[in-house]
Amino acid sequence: MKFAKIPMATITRLCVYVRNLEELLTDSVDVISSEDLARQCDVNAAQIRKDLAYFGEFGVRGVGYHVKDLLSEIKDILGLNKIWNVAIAGIGNLGVALLNHANFIKHGYIFMAAVDKDNKKIGQKLKNGLTVESIEKLPNIVKEKNIEIGIIATPANTAQGVANQFVLSGVKGILNFAPSRIQIPESCAIQNVDFTMKMDTLAYFISSS
Amino acid sequence: MKFAKIPMATITRLCVYVRNLEELLTDSVDVISSEDLARQCDVNAAQIRKDLAYFGEFGVRGVGYHVKDLLSEIKDILGLNKIWNVAIAGIGNLGVALLNHANFIKHGYIFMAAVDKDNKKIGQKLKNGLTVESIEKLPNIVKEKNIEIGIIATPANTAQGVANQFVLSGVKGILNFAPSRIQIPESCAIQNVDFTMKMDTLAYFISSS
Repeated sequence: MKFAKIPMATITRLCVYVRNLEELLTDSVDVISSEDLARQCDVNAAQIRKDLAYFGEFGVRGVGYHVKDLLSEIKDILGLNKIWNVAIAGIGNLGVALLNHANFIKHGYIFMAAVDKDNKKIGQKLKNGLTVESIEKLPNIVKEKNIEIGIIATPANTAQGVANQFVLSGVKGILNFAPSRIQIPESCAIQNVDFTMKMDTLAYFISSS
Repeated sequence: MKFAKIPMATITRLCVYVRNLEELLTDSVDVISSEDLARQCDVNAAQIRKDLAYFGEFGVRGVGYHVKDLLSEIKDILGLNKIWNVAIAGIGNLGVALLNHANFIKHGYIFMAAVDKDNKKIGQKLKNGLTVESIEKLPNIVKEKNIEIGIIATPANTAQGVANQFVLSGVKGILNFAPSRIQIPESCAIQNVDFTMKMDTLAYFISSS
């Protein structure tokens, strides 16, 4: 599906709506007003309507949104109604923690390969059944296992090199957990995960209370 | 500092502005127009002006923002111009990865204590000099080390119990990495870290390209 010029902030909020709609579904909520959904998502109702308007018409006037339908429609927009094959590079503490984190598989991200450059780690059998492979094999692995997303869980100083290898291997997107800025060509998408951004939000709430 | 009714989304964006201003400072940029800052932060310039307007007047008309000054002022707003003492519960792969992650100390979050309930872990010496302590000691630890923020890096099924212990011990905010919903009293702030939200953004970019 292709939509023109959707603001990044809208996409980020759609991801928040997905998580909240999933929670509502878990709680067996069938229908929710745009005001209640807005409250739960920490935005205002006009924002939700505006974000969704990029993609069509959603919800029923005077009724609200059907949780299951809206969830499925937003997941369609975001490309989440499919399984994504993922490779992770850097099998240290963070890499292992991510490999075992329940949320990836829950949201359709399947670890198909784990690579490292450390000979002591290569060949190790992981809890999820994968064996750590040499990062040199990335081009073959990406092709054979149809991997679209690469996760970088290496130290900061090796992250750029790993990103280059992912790009050359043909992955379409990179999730970077290393605390360093990475340059990649525009043909590949990148998102950086910074744990401490949420700490800053906490700091604000504590300071201002 | 206390400001009335600032939308959560504004606070989240302020944290994004901080990170981008820090990068500009690293790159020795002295002054930036609101348009350029907006582009870098993936928002529009009007949004930045609106967000900052909650807190006063910033920037110089026709010139833009002085990077260093604006950074310092936003950090003041967010409560980031101080050191925050942090305790972390759950010293598995994720806990160890967080303890060693450079971004926390870089942004003023200092790990003052590491606790676990596993007797095999208690007493272990960590790389950063801390010794893993029993989670039962949290009330004393929080008091003695003046800890304001607790990080939960435990499995999902023990996260609520750990959150309760943090709250009873008197922490003011909790950063939760466990993939489970946690209920705490309103007197304590909470933020949940969900790695996979950024994956969803990536999925969108790949699907729509």
